[in-house]
Amino acid sequence: MAVQAFQDCYPENVAHCYGCGRLNTHGHQIKTYWEKEETITRFRPEAFHTAIPGYVYGGLIASLIDCHGTGTAAAAMYRSEGREMDSEPPFRFVTGSLHVDFLKPTPLSGELEIRGRVKEIKGRKVIVEATVYAEGVATARGEVVAIQMTENFLRG
Amino acid sequence: MAVQAFQDCYPENVAHCYGCGRLNTHGHQIKTYWEKEETITRFRPEAFHTAIPGYVYGGLIASLIDCHGTGTAAAAMYRSEGREMDSEPPFRFVTGSLHVDFLKPTPLSGELEIRGRVKEIKGRKVIVEATVYAEGVATARGEVVAIQMTENFLRG
Repeated sequence: MAVQAFQDCYPENVAHCYGCGRLNTHGHQIKTYWEKEETITRFRPEAFHTAIPGYVYGGLIASLIDCHGTGTAAAAMYRSEGREMDSEPPFRFVTGSLHVDFLKPTPLSGELEIRGRVKEIKGRKVIVEATVYAEGVATARGEVVAIQMTENFLRG
Repeated sequence: MAVQAFQDCYPENVAHCYGCGRLNTHGHQIKTYWEKEETITRFRPEAFHTAIPGYVYGGLIASLIDCHGTGTAAAAMYRSEGREMDSEPPFRFVTGSLHVDFLKPTPLSGELEIRGRVKEIKGRKVIVEATVYAEGVATARGEVVAIQMTENFLRG
């Protein structure tokens, strides 16, 4: 059986996010997985996702870090409780703050790899660090403060 | 004569950005203007630019702040030299870092207004603060550290 991505386990009513919702047909539909203590998303930008010609648009990089961060936060919370991501009750996170340092221009030449790591879990808050790699070179580094959605919001 | 937006003055070879390039037919093509000491961008998200249903995708908000910031940086640099934005040599900025605090969910219900202000100009670096308003309420606040592109990069 194929391994489910974090986003494949999001409840239907919160699976419409432009960045990571599997039900948003216009969106990026990113998929994130554990790799030991790290989380990994691979994403291939389109030719039009450009900043200056030949380089990836910074807003896309920020978006990938954002959704990679909220996905990692949810996965980390399930893991901390020893639960599978498709078990009840569901965890889903929104972004409290997002920071991105653009280390160098990101070449628009293939698949990007975003690697994340949980820095801190404190109550309903999870801080995730993420690095974006292009052709194996780190081109951006970010931090997401993710906040667990309340049950009411989550149930809509 | 209609007032030109900052982005209408970007040199052609650097007018392809997904967020602000007037030549990127897939992109957001934001338009930013001075209003006294502030800069203003108005942008209407599409229905699919959603996070949780009914609210605007945070990655889009980050993208708008980013390009609003680099546009404001360029405009501020021209203004500090007393020059028009379509005069030579051109100024164009890239993002060194981006920070966004999401104050509350941003309703997906109409036009957003992004208002920016120059915090600091120091050498080739301009720091811009920006606030996103939906229905007149501030929902996100950001800071962009924008770096002036070198002449070589700009000329391609």
